[in-house]
Amino acid sequence: MTISRRDALKLAAVGGAVGCGLGGNPLSAQTMSSDTAKPVGTAAANSLWGGRFGAGPSAIMQQINASIGVDKRLWRQDIAGSRAHVAMLARQGIVSAADADAIDKGLQQIAAEYEAGKLVENLALEDIHLHVETRLKDIIGPAAGRLHTARSRNDQVAVDFRLWVKAACAEADGALKALIAALLKRAEEHADTIMPGFTHLQVAQPVTLGHHLMAYVEMLGRDRSRFADAAARMDECPLGAAALAGTSFPIDRQMTAKALGFAGPTRNSLDSVSDRDFALEYLSATHMTGLHLSRLAEEIIIWASQPYGFITLPDAWSTGSSIMPQKRNPDAAELVRAKSGEFLAAFTRLSVVMKGLPLAYSKDMQDDKSTVFAAFDDLGLCLASMTGMVETITFNKAKMRAAANSGFSTATDLADWLVRVAGVPFREAHEITGKCVKAAEARGSDLNGLTDAELKAIDSRITKAVRDVLSVEASVASRTSFGGTAPANVRAAIAAARARL
Amino acid sequence: MTISRRDALKLAAVGGAVGCGLGGNPLSAQTMSSDTAKPVGTAAANSLWGGRFGAGPSAIMQQINASIGVDKRLWRQDIAGSRAHVAMLARQGIVSAADADAIDKGLQQIAAEYEAGKLVENLALEDIHLHVETRLKDIIGPAAGRLHTARSRNDQVAVDFRLWVKAACAEADGALKALIAALLKRAEEHADTIMPGFTHLQVAQPVTLGHHLMAYVEMLGRDRSRFADAAARMDECPLGAAALAGTSFPIDRQMTAKALGFAGPTRNSLDSVSDRDFALEYLSATHMTGLHLSRLAEEIIIWASQPYGFITLPDAWSTGSSIMPQKRNPDAAELVRAKSGEFLAAFTRLSVVMKGLPLAYSKDMQDDKSTVFAAFDDLGLCLASMTGMVETITFNKAKMRAAANSGFSTATDLADWLVRVAGVPFREAHEITGKCVKAAEARGSDLNGLTDAELKAIDSRITKAVRDVLSVEASVASRTSFGGTAPANVRAAIAAARARL
Amino acid sequence: MTISRRDALKLAAVGGAVGCGLGGNPLSAQTMSSDTAKPVGTAAANSLWGGRFGAGPSAIMQQINASIGVDKRLWRQDIAGSRAHVAMLARQGIVSAADADAIDKGLQQIAAEYEAGKLVENLALEDIHLHVETRLKDIIGPAAGRLHTARSRNDQVAVDFRLWVKAACAEADGALKALIAALLKRAEEHADTIMPGFTHLQVAQPVTLGHHLMAYVEMLGRDRSRFADAAARMDECPLGAAALAGTSFPIDRQMTAKALGFAGPTRNSLDSVSDRDFALEYLSATHMTGLHLSRLAEEIIIWASQPYGFITLPDAWSTGSSIMPQKRNPDAAELVRAKSGEFLAAFTRLSVVMKGLPLAYSKDMQDDKSTVFAAFDDLGLCLASMTGMVETITFNKAKMRAAANSGFSTATDLADWLVRVAGVPFREAHEITGKCVKAAEARGSDLNGLTDAELKAIDSRITKAVRDVLSVEASVASRTSFGGTAPANVRAAIAAARARL
Amino acid sequence: MTISRRDALKLAAVGGAVGCGLGGNPLSAQTMSSDTAKPVGTAAANSLWGGRFGAGPSAIMQQINASIGVDKRLWRQDIAGSRAHVAMLARQGIVSAADADAIDKGLQQIAAEYEAGKLVENLALEDIHLHVETRLKDIIGPAAGRLHTARSRNDQVAVDFRLWVKAACAEADGALKALIAALLKRAEEHADTIMPGFTHLQVAQPVTLGHHLMAYVEMLGRDRSRFADAAARMDECPLGAAALAGTSFPIDRQMTAKALGFAGPTRNSLDSVSDRDFALEYLSATHMTGLHLSRLAEEIIIWASQPYGFITLPDAWSTGSSIMPQKRNPDAAELVRAKSGEFLAAFTRLSVVMKGLPLAYSKDMQDDKSTVFAAFDDLGLCLASMTGMVETITFNKAKMRAAANSGFSTATDLADWLVRVAGVPFREAHEITGKCVKAAEARGSDLNGLTDAELKAIDSRITKAVRDVLSVEASVASRTSFGGTAPANVRAAIAAARARL
Repeated sequence: MTISRRDALKLAAVGGAVGCGLGGNPLSAQTMSSDTAKPVGTAAANSLWGGRFGAGPSAIMQQINASIGVDKRLWRQDIAGSRAHVAMLARQGIVSAADADAIDKGLQQIAAEYEAGKLVENLALEDIHLHVETRLKDIIGPAAGRLHTARSRNDQVAVDFRLWVKAACAEADGALKALIAALLKRAEEHADTIMPGFTHLQVAQPVTLGHHLMAYVEMLGRDRSRFADAAARMDECPLGAAALAGTSFPIDRQMTAKALGFAGPTRNSLDSVSDRDFALEYLSATHMTGLHLSRLAEEIIIWASQPYGFITLPDAWSTGSSIMPQKRNPDAAELVRAKSGEFLAAFTRLSVVMKGLPLAYSKDMQDDKSTVFAAFDDLGLCLASMTGMVETITFNKAKMRAAANSGFSTATDLADWLVRVAGVPFREAHEITGKCVKAAEARGSDLNGLTDAELKAIDSRITKAVRDVLSVEASVASRTSFGGTAPANVRAAIAAARARL
Repeated sequence: MTISRRDALKLAAVGGAVGCGLGGNPLSAQTMSSDTAKPVGTAAANSLWGGRFGAGPSAIMQQINASIGVDKRLWRQDIAGSRAHVAMLARQGIVSAADADAIDKGLQQIAAEYEAGKLVENLALEDIHLHVETRLKDIIGPAAGRLHTARSRNDQVAVDFRLWVKAACAEADGALKALIAALLKRAEEHADTIMPGFTHLQVAQPVTLGHHLMAYVEMLGRDRSRFADAAARMDECPLGAAALAGTSFPIDRQMTAKALGFAGPTRNSLDSVSDRDFALEYLSATHMTGLHLSRLAEEIIIWASQPYGFITLPDAWSTGSSIMPQKRNPDAAELVRAKSGEFLAAFTRLSVVMKGLPLAYSKDMQDDKSTVFAAFDDLGLCLASMTGMVETITFNKAKMRAAANSGFSTATDLADWLVRVAGVPFREAHEITGKCVKAAEARGSDLNGLTDAELKAIDSRITKAVRDVLSVEASVASRTSFGGTAPANVRAAIAAARARL
Repeated sequence: MTISRRDALKLAAVGGAVGCGLGGNPLSAQTMSSDTAKPVGTAAANSLWGGRFGAGPSAIMQQINASIGVDKRLWRQDIAGSRAHVAMLARQGIVSAADADAIDKGLQQIAAEYEAGKLVENLALEDIHLHVETRLKDIIGPAAGRLHTARSRNDQVAVDFRLWVKAACAEADGALKALIAALLKRAEEHADTIMPGFTHLQVAQPVTLGHHLMAYVEMLGRDRSRFADAAARMDECPLGAAALAGTSFPIDRQMTAKALGFAGPTRNSLDSVSDRDFALEYLSATHMTGLHLSRLAEEIIIWASQPYGFITLPDAWSTGSSIMPQKRNPDAAELVRAKSGEFLAAFTRLSVVMKGLPLAYSKDMQDDKSTVFAAFDDLGLCLASMTGMVETITFNKAKMRAAANSGFSTATDLADWLVRVAGVPFREAHEITGKCVKAAEARGSDLNGLTDAELKAIDSRITKAVRDVLSVEASVASRTSFGGTAPANVRAAIAAARARL
Repeated sequence: MTISRRDALKLAAVGGAVGCGLGGNPLSAQTMSSDTAKPVGTAAANSLWGGRFGAGPSAIMQQINASIGVDKRLWRQDIAGSRAHVAMLARQGIVSAADADAIDKGLQQIAAEYEAGKLVENLALEDIHLHVETRLKDIIGPAAGRLHTARSRNDQVAVDFRLWVKAACAEADGALKALIAALLKRAEEHADTIMPGFTHLQVAQPVTLGHHLMAYVEMLGRDRSRFADAAARMDECPLGAAALAGTSFPIDRQMTAKALGFAGPTRNSLDSVSDRDFALEYLSATHMTGLHLSRLAEEIIIWASQPYGFITLPDAWSTGSSIMPQKRNPDAAELVRAKSGEFLAAFTRLSVVMKGLPLAYSKDMQDDKSTVFAAFDDLGLCLASMTGMVETITFNKAKMRAAANSGFSTATDLADWLVRVAGVPFREAHEITGKCVKAAEARGSDLNGLTDAELKAIDSRITKAVRDVLSVEASVASRTSFGGTAPANVRAAIAAARARL
């Protein structure tokens, strides 16, 4: 064989050379020792803000500082914001109609270019704002320099990002509605399919599968309202706050706010550029949704496990193993469950970033966007995946019903019967029933397996009539209190949820 | 001297014996090895739910399981919930009027006892629910056993805790209003006190202190609305969901919901006992408030630092040093800043607890209360401390004004003047101004320190008239755009905020 | 019935009055508005550090500032540190032998008092350090004032807390060893008990229960080494760093370090009082242990669920339900699982506190102790609870073996047989086996249920001899690679682990 | 002007269309509703593991499931692991020498291709493992199918990722050493540069800048040792654990472990594929480093703020403002501070993923890699940025010295003098000094500004000789205790640190 021990050691060395090749490696010693203080090329300072600067940034500085790789995703918002801004500047007489016209046409051309994928990233231009402005100057010349009158990148990024996050709330709502619709459909099919209700993952009382699925409809409904509340609270336009103090130009912030679809302008310029509550609140709502999805994912994983066997996922939502030929794994459910880690982490990350930041804008806040974008993408994937699974799961009704019959699941019904029929105080009925369970357990039967005589021996008030409440069907049908699991209730709940949707 | 090396080694041993004495130490080897499997005393199973059990809990089990030390704080809610429940049971004919009357009187007596501090904690009784029920039995006898008809501890704790958290939202609102009022008062006093506005903690443009304080009024206003939204969303009563499936008794959940001040009952029994969104949302709102407070706290700490010297805290809000006789430390601000860690941690904790929990109730959820209670207490302390500091800080106006004059803070005004008066595109004006800053910096003066000739040499369009915009007072007065820092705007913003309050 | 609608509304009001009564309520508006600026009583400034102060702290300030309620738990360490310090001061001639003697005797008396529970908490004395020093002055008079020579509370609390955390690492080690011992015992009993091995919670391959339990022995072994590494890294004594800069007194830091059992003194005075790495690292190790426990807890919960039925917990580790008489819930396992939330939260909390703190000591760091103490207590409870459960669980071997037989768990054995016996490339063998599984599934049998002819029809190389590898016993016995599940391997692994222990 | 109100509303609509265009948008309703259940194209099941499958994955399933976009970064490790594996299979006679030779040559060819950037991503091939194996089959035909004998992707990814993380620990060490070297150089230059030492951000005692910088050398030294401990603990090779249970093939795990540079093989097959401690521990060490960097970053930001003016960053490490021409912002320091949020979030994310996962491998764990890779990249950027800043900062010694003189920074020296010279107990000396500070403050001078008579009036034991200790130079020079700030100590500490490096 060809690999000697020496080769093997070389392999280890190969193994050790991580991070080179695909993916880049800013951590290698070479990179750092030589480049940290060296300005990038011969380039002097930034041409848009570098008037007072004598030298350009170091290579590492440029790498940590530039955000274009991330914030290019805001290009639509950035151009929309600039078009609204210049329209206002023109109406207020701050720029001429001709200049404004040129600027607007130029911005539209840039939008067309970007739509066609022609954005050329340039680290020296830092972010999407400088990319757009620089391209505008290429197209229309020095008049481009009038666009940035009475604004700053601080309010510009604030308005771009708010527009994006507001729309992300609407997207979340749409995706949540799709999942709710899928749940309602399956709940309706299974309004009287019996399964065990669990507490502590112990069989507790029989419920219907429809009722169980409707619990998630409730959770997701709250999620929708959280996104709606967040969207309403962020519905104020920061454009015109300028750097931090407002401006001396006679701008009309009501006009730009309306043009961009906001309810109105923000009220304090310092707060306008310092605030990232809206992003945090979006992440908080995302995380809450992720928690709910993690619970449903956990149930799918447990239900698909052979000892349960409650469900079968279709091939389209299963994966196999590279070694075990028989495997059919619920990978999508596992990944949805895992993403709850990402969502909490995203909220944590931005929270730590904001902790203790003095007013007004600090560069720390630049880390807000990659966090929100990634959470947005993965929330979308999770909701779509869960919708797909819910739509296509096969529920194994026989397995579910059999499990519902285990664990003395109708013991509460016996206790309630004692209260209702025999007038026993509930606490005493509970104790009597506990003895029945103990007796049944001792002989390895369920409650119905005890004879009338045996039951009577435990408590003389128990009669043959008790058999009526000991079946899982009877149990489920009897839970007619509002919000209870009786099939009729479930159907009413589905109808009401459809109306809300 | 009396302490030999041998004594010193003994000291080390003393040093090593942590956790004994004050505070208890469940981690010691003795405790664990002997007690884990040993039932507590000769006691048999729990008398309220132990019908089927043959043996009592182990000592360690009882210690990890019992929550009375924490949830006793819910006693008012627990008794209120029970009184509403029994009133409903009576009206629905599920218990007799006489029994209900006895129960209600008993509950009122217990409330009086607890109010007087007479709750005796007993680990064997696990939680506040069993403490109340057991005491009730002592007082009125077996009829007490009828109280738990058609409910479970699962819905009972859900309703108790919701009542508590809903009220906590109201408490937060009150405390936030007090802090806002304090800020408004100081903002009014300092509507035209000039200070440097910072971005990146670099002097950016002059602002007024009033305007700066009003930024926090905005943040805290959003905090109030988050607590309000959370309170509205949790305004559904879970009582009557019973264990998880509803009940077969003819209960009236509308009646209990109304009696307890809820808008109505929850809609799904499984969700009712599985849900802790309300606690998470309360913690999220608390955390957002904590983040805002951490920013103000950071500013207080920086402003009080000698090189800034913007503020002096009164003795009542300062502490000294055990070694440095001159120290006057802003400990309260530091502690408020630190608590942002607690609030994020509280949200993290409950989030991790809920991740991946299958329906319905799991015991994991018991950890919700200690987390929320601690966050509530510390939020109260933080808001009260910040209110106290804001009310009593001395602002050193001269220091603030001097700093506002540093860092070429009116450079933007020069650029804007070039745009407005000379018609220069803003981007070009920015560059010209950059050169002026460079020239002033080179000679160690501020912008006003450049002669007319020097300015003209940089750009011929700069005239003597530019002096009008280079003072910090002129700069501040010119920022009249909506939300800007001009004193008149600040006064209008204060008036509007008072109206909202 | 006696509760009218009006009474019911009053109930709601009662329900709303949270936070009063038991537990205290610092958030009420009354408390805050009146007390924030009011000095406490007529008391002037702190008598130990208040020389330059004109007025005492406000009531709220005292409440947020005082830490005695928490750091009293450090009393042993505090007294040990002071005894070592004064012994050194005496040997260096900084205090007289007589004074040192008096101080040492006084400290011993205080230790005896505290041991007897006689510590009287006084918020005005802030922390354990001032409590001890003040009591010392009561006992021996002004000479007590010499104890604080050449030190500060900054290095004093650093050394106290390090001593405590170092010992906490040792306590964790002891508790981990107890759990490992319990696992080894059960693993030995079940070295050849067959159960299904899962991946993705799908039956994968049969394993032995002993092997499964030994996986946790590996995890907990890493946990032990993490606590050991942390303890070694924190084994430096900060005493003598004084406030932040060291001292001009001729102290001997080697002597105090040795006396307190440290390897030596810390090397930089600023770092000594600013550092909380040791606490963070302790929390990180605690959290990793908590994660491992959460996995075992999850398995206990799933295994105890009726559809699995792999285990039964004894009554001593189960709890019942207030409504469902048959329930036997694995509460302890659920609570252990939940505590993983606390441990991550504790790490998060202290991390957020430390983020961005300038040197040297800031009061924010005071929040370190309550966090660590609570994590320590709950780690102890979790390890003890898990040890108790592991020791007493009943494993239902028949249920486990039956489940091991499900899910075509020996499909890999068939594929491996094809490689070994028929020389088929593994990837092709995997595909052939996949077809066998599909055929078996279609007819509802396991792999052994296919006839020889059916197998041959799928691939002609499959002979009757394959039956030898299709039983779960054969499968398990064949996994003899190092670290594999064969019973002989498991016994060897247990022996090796015992040797390490 | 051309933009009417109607156009403006359209702008808002444009603003609302987030997520389309650059960046992709999985959350849009269209995507989800149509694609969730649809298999990808006409493609049947995966050709490597799909033997039992009837249909391919849905489009969304493929998107959430595939990891090639992330784990391609492991290609070097994957090929190294496969080469070591096949070499062992050959030596053990499990594959023929000829097949092994072909496989090894094929793997080398793939490595050359990937090195040249020729990896073609294919979602249907899921991950780097299937990409390599599929490409190998293209090159050498069916013999490629023998490579996966006696292993699974579960142990394969475990070994790949461990190799990567182990190397990442070494990379971190190198980068930490570079930063330490930079700090040592600057500390040496400034071993006697005087600056104020702060506690609570209040001037406390004078220290030297060299001493302050050396505090970070201590922190970063601990960071190095944490990475070293983590690397040592993860130095066990999981290859050969196979799916979860080991294998029946006669493999030699010692051989592969050595070939890949590990100290030896892991001891339990279930743990081998379930464990991600090594990744968590790497993230924990990264986070601790990030916390230290956040503190230094905070100091750079505060020191660069005009009221401090302690430092000036060079143009290469500063950025400007789009609106304020005078700005020179410390963006790199702010971004380094912000990244502490990412590092804590990364640890949080993987922790939440692992919480409560039953053994053995679950797909949740796939989220480990993107988290670690991003943290690695940003740690590299942060360390390189901080090294660059430390190397090039200009320290403004005059400003620092002036600030060191403020805040009565030598008050402790006066108190210590009273102890040393006049024999006053420290506590009394502290109080006397407090009175001196109060007197000086009242007249607006520093301590030296009090006349001899005034000092004597406060306490008769104070003589003219006290002037010797009231200068900042004298104060610093006197702090000669081990670890103290005296210049001689600092130089000794630098020499010792160089020796350790």
